[in-house]
Amino acid sequence: MVYRAIVVDVDGTLTFEDRSLDCRAVEALRSLEVPVVIATGNVLCSARTASKLIGTGGIVIAENGGAVECGIVEYDTTYKQRCEEAFEFLSRHLALEKLDPENRKTEVGLRRNFDVEKAREMLKAAFPDIEIVDTGFAVHIKGKSINKGTGLRRIAELMGLESKDFVAIGDSPNDVEMLEVAGFGVAVGNAHPALKRVADLVTEGKHGAGVAEAVGELKKRREII
Amino acid sequence: MVYRAIVVDVDGTLTFEDRSLDCRAVEALRSLEVPVVIATGNVLCSARTASKLIGTGGIVIAENGGAVECGIVEYDTTYKQRCEEAFEFLSRHLALEKLDPENRKTEVGLRRNFDVEKAREMLKAAFPDIEIVDTGFAVHIKGKSINKGTGLRRIAELMGLESKDFVAIGDSPNDVEMLEVAGFGVAVGNAHPALKRVADLVTEGKHGAGVAEAVGELKKRREII
Repeated sequence: MVYRAIVVDVDGTLTFEDRSLDCRAVEALRSLEVPVVIATGNVLCSARTASKLIGTGGIVIAENGGAVECGIVEYDTTYKQRCEEAFEFLSRHLALEKLDPENRKTEVGLRRNFDVEKAREMLKAAFPDIEIVDTGFAVHIKGKSINKGTGLRRIAELMGLESKDFVAIGDSPNDVEMLEVAGFGVAVGNAHPALKRVADLVTEGKHGAGVAEAVGELKKRREII
Repeated sequence: MVYRAIVVDVDGTLTFEDRSLDCRAVEALRSLEVPVVIATGNVLCSARTASKLIGTGGIVIAENGGAVECGIVEYDTTYKQRCEEAFEFLSRHLALEKLDPENRKTEVGLRRNFDVEKAREMLKAAFPDIEIVDTGFAVHIKGKSINKGTGLRRIAELMGLESKDFVAIGDSPNDVEMLEVAGFGVAVGNAHPALKRVADLVTEGKHGAGVAEAVGELKKRREII
């Protein structure tokens, strides 16, 4: 199988723990001829900037699949109101701090300074359509049926491809669906066990070293150019 | 003189012409012990993301000095309304396209696809307080008395420093005032002649190679650590 594009998570995958770019990953991505898509839980403005600085072509998945940009911009705001209701509900019992509220259009992002398990328990009964995802960098209150996998399907469609044409690389539980719908899934060495379980390849290297290792391996196999 | 901090422009200075990061500059900045401030004409959300990815501490000057962040966020919206009026005035005669209108709070950013000289001529009489700056990446309609120099003064104050404690590095006409108020000004090799004229050092290297060269030279002189 020769893959026709690659989609890569940012925080923890292209970056170190402190969210600074691992230049080994940047150079590996720049060595590819196929399109490189950036996929993140961050807001679209941040995803766009990351794409520019990394040197990919501006095709991005943001807000965990809620926002996509490929020439045109699309927001799926189906669950925004429900996420806000869930936030209000949780805020009665927990001290929560929103991240990028002005720019986040499809979900609610929160600082990681509260008991996520407790919040999950509280939401279960009243909000069966809403879930809480902890990426290790932020916590997201999001619609269950929107994720980086649905975002990848839509981006693939906008690019005239299938999601199976993609190699997907990530580190965190919010990358699971993206790896599942991609043709080949890579979990970097520092990835969460839940992501390693669904990956076709788990790299030895962590963060950017893992990305460079996966790109090198797939080039060697002539499965990506 | 030992400088206590450094402030660096992003597009064209830390990046190549295509706005992708020059990793040589990233590594040079990460080798420093002093605080590194990012200064850009871009919106705050973009400046923040750049600071995270480059691996500096989140202290930023955005919107050409109109927005600063150092723990707290400050916007100087004094000229926003006048900039919008100037935009409306110019739009009667020129086809202009705004950049990041949702996130730009202190000035108006425009795509570089119109006759900037003609626009400057048109504004002269009716808008003496407003200027048009072309960074080579975008065109900005901005208040004359707000610039990266005033932004640097404010950031220095928030950091408990003087602007003269800073080394400033840039490439473009919108960096002139920043170099003027800094203690030591560097223009990278690809810089606009107007910036080279006010610089204490013009590097041989272009873009990130110039940044790495300046950092190396100042370290050798023991003027920065």
